[in-house]
Amino acid sequence: MARTVLVTGLGLMGGSLAAALSAAGWTVLLHHRRKEVADKAEALGYGRAIGDFAEAATADIAVVCTPVASIPQVARTIAAATASAKKPPVITDIGSTKGALCADLADLGGRFVGSHPMAGSHLQGLEHADARLYQGRVAIITPTPATPAAATAVVEDLWHGAGCRLIRLDPDQHDRLVAEASHLPHVLAAVAAMNLSASAAPLAAGGFRDTTRVAAGSPEIWSEILLANHGAVLLTIAWAQKRLDDLRAALQAGDQDTIARWLAAGGAGRARFEAAQPPAAASLQPRASPPE
Amino acid sequence: MARTVLVTGLGLMGGSLAAALSAAGWTVLLHHRRKEVADKAEALGYGRAIGDFAEAATADIAVVCTPVASIPQVARTIAAATASAKKPPVITDIGSTKGALCADLADLGGRFVGSHPMAGSHLQGLEHADARLYQGRVAIITPTPATPAAATAVVEDLWHGAGCRLIRLDPDQHDRLVAEASHLPHVLAAVAAMNLSASAAPLAAGGFRDTTRVAAGSPEIWSEILLANHGAVLLTIAWAQKRLDDLRAALQAGDQDTIARWLAAGGAGRARFEAAQPPAAASLQPRASPPE
Repeated sequence: MARTVLVTGLGLMGGSLAAALSAAGWTVLLHHRRKEVADKAEALGYGRAIGDFAEAATADIAVVCTPVASIPQVARTIAAATASAKKPPVITDIGSTKGALCADLADLGGRFVGSHPMAGSHLQGLEHADARLYQGRVAIITPTPATPAAATAVVEDLWHGAGCRLIRLDPDQHDRLVAEASHLPHVLAAVAAMNLSASAAPLAAGGFRDTTRVAAGSPEIWSEILLANHGAVLLTIAWAQKRLDDLRAALQAGDQDTIARWLAAGGAGRARFEAAQPPAAASLQPRASPPE
Repeated sequence: MARTVLVTGLGLMGGSLAAALSAAGWTVLLHHRRKEVADKAEALGYGRAIGDFAEAATADIAVVCTPVASIPQVARTIAAATASAKKPPVITDIGSTKGALCADLADLGGRFVGSHPMAGSHLQGLEHADARLYQGRVAIITPTPATPAAATAVVEDLWHGAGCRLIRLDPDQHDRLVAEASHLPHVLAAVAAMNLSASAAPLAAGGFRDTTRVAAGSPEIWSEILLANHGAVLLTIAWAQKRLDDLRAALQAGDQDTIARWLAAGGAGRARFEAAQPPAAASLQPRASPPE
């Protein structure tokens, strides 16, 4: 169902969301801290630039696409600027952690519902916005017992409009699962990359290329993500260290059966991943190699 | 320079090597524990099947492509079977660790020279052999001070014939560098994969896909590889655990600058990898995503 949306923070993620919703027939209001960025998005055909959140009082929903650290303040500013509207917009975000954020914004009552679309790119900025960025991806939404059903429905419309599949999770559960699916792999890719000496670099091949690809990501963005989810990330790092302890013991004992079982547990995790990928979304992804 | 080569162990690696050298004009003698496999390779046009190593007395070089654990015994059997030749063939292998092997086979004098071509596939078996498997890849050779220059030259001819670029390393140095470039990344990919719960699997996306791709590899083959190189692998695991300790401390302290510097060290490692890839070889590799 097409509606009216405010998108604030017009980088790659916000710009792509505006492009996707605009293409899906939504009325899109474009806002950015620097108004000229919103004007540029308007020139690209992604919607209509506005200079003040008060102009978004008629929107059904506002999506905060700013850096993680500023989400609470921007959400509160939108809530205040639109509080006198007959039907103030629901507010959501695209931040990659949800527990602390949803707890922080609980005082907005049912107006704030957390979102986390599992999409992204190593590219940044409005100039790389792509209406297909969210197509076929999972969007997690994190309503709480205090969220009215109508607010949840509007957020679901939003992500369906952008082409996403939806998963509903409790905010804290979201953070634990995302640590497993995204944050720990990022940390381990960085460890693999930082331990490659210049002498070893000519020996690295396709396996190294894939394993460490995400290590090229922005240290600024990722330090913010890891810190925002530090509780769950610390837990998964502790698990990882325990697994490495187990492997060390087996290597020291020369116990090939245990090492093979340890490696097979990795294969089983990979199989859980493959089994959870919908065929359509899988075919959208370029593959690093023929299917395993 | 085209010569005569014996290839024993006609799986994916041996079969592909036979195919490549045959295409390059070499005379290829094909041997396998089960003679019918060698016959099949002959039918594929990869050379001429032989049933006994004594028939390879005229070869310039013999390449042992059997599983790692059997390399020393197969190399000794070839050496004995061809010892009475006027010019007994140089013997090499394609195993992924070199220190212990080269020490073990030092008693063959200059006849054994270790090799490790950095090529592979998740596919296995002669039916997947591909003459292009080695094209543009690095082959490491590990002559020792006891190796005659003529023997090293024959091994170099072999890998040039298969299309490889060559790097010479000391056997122990080889094992340390390969642990960094290949074995530690494999271990960390397995850790990332095994920590993905079924609940988290639907949240995993392209980053997880690339980071854990190699975790689908054979536990049997990889347990053998890790065990064969356990000294260097244990050392790199210890480094990895120290890096994880550092990150945990920074997360616990809420120290974003230190976390960002830690992540930037991963980016620097990735940059060392990119800088070491020759443009030609890089273009042969399918990419998981647009170039970073």
